[in-house]
Amino acid sequence: MTDTIQNAIDYLHETQDKMMEDYKDLLRFPSISADPAYADDVKACADWIVGQLEAMSFDNCEAIETAGLPVVYGEWLKAGADKPTVLVYAHYDVQPVDPLPLWRSEPFEGVIRDGNMVARGASDNKAGVWGNLKVFEALLRANGTLPVNVKIMFEGEEESGSPSIEDFVVANKERLQADLLLNCDGNLKPDDPQLTYAGRGIVSAEVRVTGPSADIHSGLYGGLVQNPLHVAGQIIASFHDADGRVQLPGYYDSLREVNAAEKERIAAGFQEGSLKEGAGIENFWGESIAPASERATVYPTLDVNGMWGGYQGAGNKTIIPAEAGIKVTMRLAPDQDPRVVSQLLKRHVESFASDTVDVSCEIGEEAWYFQLVTEGPWLEAVQSAIEATVGSRAQLVRTGGSIPILGVFNRLIGLPITGFGYGDGEGIHSPNEYLKIDTFVKSLEAAVRLYHNFGEVGSLP
Amino acid sequence: MTDTIQNAIDYLHETQDKMMEDYKDLLRFPSISADPAYADDVKACADWIVGQLEAMSFDNCEAIETAGLPVVYGEWLKAGADKPTVLVYAHYDVQPVDPLPLWRSEPFEGVIRDGNMVARGASDNKAGVWGNLKVFEALLRANGTLPVNVKIMFEGEEESGSPSIEDFVVANKERLQADLLLNCDGNLKPDDPQLTYAGRGIVSAEVRVTGPSADIHSGLYGGLVQNPLHVAGQIIASFHDADGRVQLPGYYDSLREVNAAEKERIAAGFQEGSLKEGAGIENFWGESIAPASERATVYPTLDVNGMWGGYQGAGNKTIIPAEAGIKVTMRLAPDQDPRVVSQLLKRHVESFASDTVDVSCEIGEEAWYFQLVTEGPWLEAVQSAIEATVGSRAQLVRTGGSIPILGVFNRLIGLPITGFGYGDGEGIHSPNEYLKIDTFVKSLEAAVRLYHNFGEVGSLP
Repeated sequence: MTDTIQNAIDYLHETQDKMMEDYKDLLRFPSISADPAYADDVKACADWIVGQLEAMSFDNCEAIETAGLPVVYGEWLKAGADKPTVLVYAHYDVQPVDPLPLWRSEPFEGVIRDGNMVARGASDNKAGVWGNLKVFEALLRANGTLPVNVKIMFEGEEESGSPSIEDFVVANKERLQADLLLNCDGNLKPDDPQLTYAGRGIVSAEVRVTGPSADIHSGLYGGLVQNPLHVAGQIIASFHDADGRVQLPGYYDSLREVNAAEKERIAAGFQEGSLKEGAGIENFWGESIAPASERATVYPTLDVNGMWGGYQGAGNKTIIPAEAGIKVTMRLAPDQDPRVVSQLLKRHVESFASDTVDVSCEIGEEAWYFQLVTEGPWLEAVQSAIEATVGSRAQLVRTGGSIPILGVFNRLIGLPITGFGYGDGEGIHSPNEYLKIDTFVKSLEAAVRLYHNFGEVGSLP
Repeated sequence: MTDTIQNAIDYLHETQDKMMEDYKDLLRFPSISADPAYADDVKACADWIVGQLEAMSFDNCEAIETAGLPVVYGEWLKAGADKPTVLVYAHYDVQPVDPLPLWRSEPFEGVIRDGNMVARGASDNKAGVWGNLKVFEALLRANGTLPVNVKIMFEGEEESGSPSIEDFVVANKERLQADLLLNCDGNLKPDDPQLTYAGRGIVSAEVRVTGPSADIHSGLYGGLVQNPLHVAGQIIASFHDADGRVQLPGYYDSLREVNAAEKERIAAGFQEGSLKEGAGIENFWGESIAPASERATVYPTLDVNGMWGGYQGAGNKTIIPAEAGIKVTMRLAPDQDPRVVSQLLKRHVESFASDTVDVSCEIGEEAWYFQLVTEGPWLEAVQSAIEATVGSRAQLVRTGGSIPILGVFNRLIGLPITGFGYGDGEGIHSPNEYLKIDTFVKSLEAAVRLYHNFGEVGSLP
């Protein structure tokens, strides 16, 4: 069995230079999902990946159409009925490249510099796509088989908020059945490996308060016309009590407290010093609600991310502005339904409308909290693969952030999820994004071990 | 006596074409006070006006230095001790010209088009400077004397908030003694003449709320770090109660109610329909405080003129922003001291500072309410001059706006004030500002009559 692993690892080392050279073919597609001008490039990228899967004798390979950009699907189910089926998620779309002048090389011409592959998407998340393709290739070439049954699902809209993924999952529920979802949108940091196991849901919204038909003179109209900025201020002030508790009626109704063991795990992973340093603050806030570690990760929040209205230049301009705007996001706790919470927000905000101002609340994103496995054989398979490769097990981290696709899977498919990240890089979402090649190769080794370990878990009864 | 008037008017008509041609020399100075790059042009303009006064045998002509830009002073005191002394105010500085592409001709090259003189400042307020110079010239040429003693005070910083005028008035209190101040910063609208007789004071301020040292991730920090935009919303919401009454402690303490006669005058001049149309609104607001006519003119207000913070673009950005800003102006009622009120604001706003956010409140402009004469011989002199020229008397208007220089004179010099405007124009503060030439000439006729009438009032005992 160890030979099985070593054979594949040897193959990866022997072919490493060609593998990185071939990676440039994938990096060459400007698969920017946020900009409709690149839709054909995104689709061409999907088709190219389908061709790669077909060349490795995957079955039913297809760039599956969605309302937006395609999902790449392919399956290799020849490991046997006693082996588990792993649904592998990554995304092949990338962030936009601006500001272009800050790039030292062409964003879509992969360049190897100082041991790094530099290109947009080299790390986020074409490394997840390429890494899996190369690991499966290595296992198949070295051993003629894979240790598990595999279903591939590579998304093309992750960087633009996954607008089509929920409908896609609903429409392809049967096809996506598996024993485990492996989320490969992440990094392996060999010096400090971490695995995110849970995070919050999210609802975003934009509020508009409109009054007079144009900015009007505050001398002529002051005291006579209601100022939309005052109403915007009242709305913002109404969101929290003095302790920071969110004041939307019913907001906490469906909230599920995490258990004592989970609270302990959160507290153990909480890094107060580095968080304060990162924010440049002396003091946290909201202490009466819950311990800081839980407020940052598991309690729901409501934050105004932006506000505007009227004159923002130098000096003063004596106007009652026509309009004010507020951008809001809420981070949701376990069991909070984003579609319910978004309506609580909308109803509350729109109650500020009167015969002197109009108030609208447009809901944007709605995503559930997510929960990956925190114990058991699937996680152990990942941990022992990481430990065997980099010498230490990953720290389990609960994030306060959101990964919408995982909430979709939790809710619609219900299969256990764990994560594994290929490579390590910086400049994600920024100019000169890169992937450290030696870490990438290390993560391929870990992945060979991980799929092997998954095969040992066996299929669920 | 009528010959005295007619001689001067005849002179004005005979020299009208040359007068408008010569006006271009004054219009040629780009005397933009708000932009320090034009300081030398403002000063050159002041010197040029001093030369004009000297050429008319005015005495003690001087561009008087201030902490900022100079005040043009000159006096003609040869009318005799039994004649009153009139201190004539106008301003020779102008607004900036941007957006320049919208100008159909060079802003500082006066062009006569369709009976209008088109140039920056042609109406606001070089018409007040030029009108007075030409009226005095006409009276001196036609009659060898002026009907009153005259002191000229032409300001060079009106369009940038008159920052030096209070110190100037204090330092030159003796020199500025007179029987009447005539404010010539305005228009004569022959079809609907109006005289503003009172207005509100003003305080402006800028509030900053700062928290984290940079925008931070709302997933990582949501619930943990106080959001400066929330505090900004709380500050805005704290400014008023539900009826719109300003909630700064002590705000209404020094407020003096106007008397019943004044309330009637305000109500008579209040134009509800055109105000609602102008603002594009169905309903006024704040009804429980006072009648709309008084809220718009005599009650104090507090308006947020601008607010900003965080992300204002399309979509959403999941941040807790580092900073929020609010711009505030208050319109002040009779007897409210702007220096007291500004401290009420500052104290209240800064009370929102805590160990999690810093709050600063920077005071900008501070100006008193103003009050011109509403009856008596000075006003009658103006009214009968207007009536003799355009056929109707001016309507007396109380504005909710502010004219800081008049509050300074009310308080520091204490002499009666009335107003008279030269010409009529549009595009004030906008591209293609112009002065209607025939109205300008009509206003010169009215001014000849007005100075004659002032001479008849006689000096005060």
